[in-house]
Amino acid sequence: MTALLQKHQDLLTKALDACAHRYAWSGWPENPSSKIHGEEKPAAGLARFESLLGQHFPLLQPGEIGRVGEEVSPYTGEPLGVRYPQMDPQGLFAAINVARPGWAAASPEARVGVCLEILQRCGEQLFENAHATMHTSGQSYVMAFAGSGANALDRGLEALAYAHKAMQDVPATAHWERQFGRDGVASLEKRYRLLPRGIGVVVCCATFPLWNTYPALCASLATGNPVILKPHPAATLPVAMVAKVCREVLAEAGFDPNLVTLAADTRAEPATLPLVQHPDTAIIDFTGSPRFGSWLEQNCPGKLVYTETAGCNSVVLESTDDLTATARAIAHSLCQASAQMCTSVQNIHIPAAGIQVGGETVSHADVAQAICAAVDHWLAEPRAAATLCGTLFDPTVQANVDRYRELAGGRILRDSAPYDNPGFPAARTATPLVIAATEADRDWYRQEVFGPVSFIIANDSLEACLADATGNARDCGAITSHVYSTDPAFLGRAVDAYHAAGASVACNLTGMPINFAAAYSDFHVTGLNPAGNACLADLAFVSNRFRIVQSKFMGVAPAA
Amino acid sequence: MTALLQKHQDLLTKALDACAHRYAWSGWPENPSSKIHGEEKPAAGLARFESLLGQHFPLLQPGEIGRVGEEVSPYTGEPLGVRYPQMDPQGLFAAINVARPGWAAASPEARVGVCLEILQRCGEQLFENAHATMHTSGQSYVMAFAGSGANALDRGLEALAYAHKAMQDVPATAHWERQFGRDGVASLEKRYRLLPRGIGVVVCCATFPLWNTYPALCASLATGNPVILKPHPAATLPVAMVAKVCREVLAEAGFDPNLVTLAADTRAEPATLPLVQHPDTAIIDFTGSPRFGSWLEQNCPGKLVYTETAGCNSVVLESTDDLTATARAIAHSLCQASAQMCTSVQNIHIPAAGIQVGGETVSHADVAQAICAAVDHWLAEPRAAATLCGTLFDPTVQANVDRYRELAGGRILRDSAPYDNPGFPAARTATPLVIAATEADRDWYRQEVFGPVSFIIANDSLEACLADATGNARDCGAITSHVYSTDPAFLGRAVDAYHAAGASVACNLTGMPINFAAAYSDFHVTGLNPAGNACLADLAFVSNRFRIVQSKFMGVAPAA
Repeated sequence: MTALLQKHQDLLTKALDACAHRYAWSGWPENPSSKIHGEEKPAAGLARFESLLGQHFPLLQPGEIGRVGEEVSPYTGEPLGVRYPQMDPQGLFAAINVARPGWAAASPEARVGVCLEILQRCGEQLFENAHATMHTSGQSYVMAFAGSGANALDRGLEALAYAHKAMQDVPATAHWERQFGRDGVASLEKRYRLLPRGIGVVVCCATFPLWNTYPALCASLATGNPVILKPHPAATLPVAMVAKVCREVLAEAGFDPNLVTLAADTRAEPATLPLVQHPDTAIIDFTGSPRFGSWLEQNCPGKLVYTETAGCNSVVLESTDDLTATARAIAHSLCQASAQMCTSVQNIHIPAAGIQVGGETVSHADVAQAICAAVDHWLAEPRAAATLCGTLFDPTVQANVDRYRELAGGRILRDSAPYDNPGFPAARTATPLVIAATEADRDWYRQEVFGPVSFIIANDSLEACLADATGNARDCGAITSHVYSTDPAFLGRAVDAYHAAGASVACNLTGMPINFAAAYSDFHVTGLNPAGNACLADLAFVSNRFRIVQSKFMGVAPAA
Repeated sequence: MTALLQKHQDLLTKALDACAHRYAWSGWPENPSSKIHGEEKPAAGLARFESLLGQHFPLLQPGEIGRVGEEVSPYTGEPLGVRYPQMDPQGLFAAINVARPGWAAASPEARVGVCLEILQRCGEQLFENAHATMHTSGQSYVMAFAGSGANALDRGLEALAYAHKAMQDVPATAHWERQFGRDGVASLEKRYRLLPRGIGVVVCCATFPLWNTYPALCASLATGNPVILKPHPAATLPVAMVAKVCREVLAEAGFDPNLVTLAADTRAEPATLPLVQHPDTAIIDFTGSPRFGSWLEQNCPGKLVYTETAGCNSVVLESTDDLTATARAIAHSLCQASAQMCTSVQNIHIPAAGIQVGGETVSHADVAQAICAAVDHWLAEPRAAATLCGTLFDPTVQANVDRYRELAGGRILRDSAPYDNPGFPAARTATPLVIAATEADRDWYRQEVFGPVSFIIANDSLEACLADATGNARDCGAITSHVYSTDPAFLGRAVDAYHAAGASVACNLTGMPINFAAAYSDFHVTGLNPAGNACLADLAFVSNRFRIVQSKFMGVAPAA
């Protein structure tokens, strides 16, 4: 065992156990409160973040041809002014190719140890990462610390645990001996070596820049593949901070830092295609739009493509014993991170005839009203509202809201408006827009409307609710789906219907953020509907990132 | 645990252990001798084979639109006259789609149990399968019994063990509980369900019809995917016999027999494209030509494609302590199954200046001569020669031999000729053609020349031997590669060079058939060079054939 693996063995062991039994666990603190961390750590994190602003980001990479940076804080409206390396693919790939053999030759244990150290070091910069995420992705500080910090690291560790498990499944050596006819006993020493596939390109998204980045990074790097991180131009800083840690840890461990690089770009001159289409790129991990994700899935033959994109996440309401709790659970999803999460609910299906609440029929209109009231409940206290909603990461999100306000006309159930974000008067904010819809409006809701726009859909019947919701999951994708019902028989039918559409489903979640996806426990993304072709993480996510070559020896053998 | 899994639990446990430790083991008898089996079983197997000749093969499948059959025995030159169902894709897929839900709903344990029973029943027809394989693929009886029987079944069990392991990695349920802020404890029951991908099409090859068929069948079927077996028109009978067993076992176990079907075709009217391109086909397992395999890899986006094709397998000779043993080992590969195996050696690289034998230099010409003499050694006794060489499965193989005889002209080191196959005067036979080559002849040997044609290549130096052989493996594919050297340092360099080309390598194998690939021990095909993109079997071969969906419940839950 290598020193780094030994150092972090307990963490890895715990992660493997959590993956096997899928209980609740986190390897990192989810709460940024100074009651836990003291005053000094959070202040130092903020200071480190501020020291980066207006500067060239400290990364020295071969193949740099210039600097770019167009991040604008959704909180202040001000450019961050951080400048990142823009890379010439030829120089970048050449440098990476120099780095490849040493990493490929390292033992799986050595590589897993390096990845564990990377995760731990990233865990030490959770505070500055939270500020970087706030001022790029627009998340609130608390969300940026937990969701884009601790929970994202957990997902990296989860993928790393799977990679470790898949690699450990292949023994290093074997002794093989048998008789062939009268030829006597043939005795062979066999050695099995794991070889990486090539270079991995990780295309990161804007709103949760590290959520899928840590898992893809760990899955590829641990299995021997160098990684190029291609951040979104709107949210580069959190990714750059990870790249810097990776390069430092690699160098300290005696490896070439160019095994992990950052390739920044601009909206005007995107770098993704030249990176993913380069012949040395063997693996593509993509988080982003369904359109480009699907294009990658279809147009990169011979490369491994893992995608998480988006869909139209749904709720089906059949009955509840506690309408207030149910409405609040759903409304929480409409508010959280201004519904810019891959798990945010968009389509709420309620039978036109209403639902049963504690044995009484409550009309469709009253249920819709309860949900809108619950949104207002969450927004009542400004500081809590700001923590829950954060900001809109980009002006295009506000444009989505505006477009649907116009389309909806008189069918707005709850109008969207800016809210005051304490401490950030210039913050780009918008409260949830809730629109009344019927199946006649399917064009509106059979796609992801990115941002705080949702539809309360009056389907003709309960069965029509389920058919619409699951049909949309099958055709347009879904990452989360919810059902509320007190009837176990209906729950059973609903689960089967969602599963038949290739979707997972959560039933009767209240009293918790229903958007929450738990690393080590939830298999995030099924890979069976258009919202992505991969699960982060399972064995399939890791086991093809390396291949096995073997040597066998009769008699003399070289030193191992 | 299901009854069938319980019945075969010991076999599965043993296979899992063999895969983990990769020692020599076989679950089935490799020797057809009546000394082991008695007289009755072999005779009954022959009788059952003969009873099939000239008949409609007993398969009743929905969607049949006619019967085809164009098999001709390479031993007798006579048509077998067996007629197989030709399928209308529309009717076939419709029937399979009816069968899918029941199989998807079955537990992984139930499906693995059915696959184990299928393998065991196929093991009971090893004798008739051996005759069927002889008279289609042209293998000798002994080879057909062992290689296409026991060893192929072993590979099916190996893939099944991996599928079982990958599915067992996902627990069925979990309890998850945690605190969210002041909201109290959230407690969830979670259920994880494995869903299949779709329909699997297994395209089988002519010369080893079941070698990759059992593994692909087991990998797809165990993970819930129905399987269409598309046999080669020249070697349909062995595959049809497996399809029949599958359908019987499925029906007896209470499942729809259409979960495994046979789609026979003819050379004039191939059925493969409509099957693999059907939208319900999600998985393609292909064994056959590099050209079509590569086309499938590049042109089936969104489908899982697993290929084993072919390459130009090489030997590099540096030195040996026993030239006779080394020459015989190599010559054995040139003779076995008339070099129609995916593991047959084709290119023998020997430095022009000769090699060291027991410390003495032996000239290139003398080493080449020793190899040719070793071929003659194996052919000296007619019955043994027939067992070793079998026949040419198809007239095109003889055409290959003829073409290279002509091309080689005066550079024939050992000429090919028919040999007398005892008991089968009309057998299509050809002994090895061995051609002297230099790097000027690279066009000849940088491709698979299918059949008993090999090249003894005089490279300028030892390093040139290694560079040529490994470069060809990288560019043109290789399934097996051999090095003979008494120098551990050279062996180390050679292993590294072959691995860098994405190839496995065997060193100094003598006294055993060097073509032998051991199930549970050898990772067959690396997936890193053009001879195939998959390994049969490893975790990567199975873990993406199913996906995971989950349901989670707070409070009330449907019956499990």
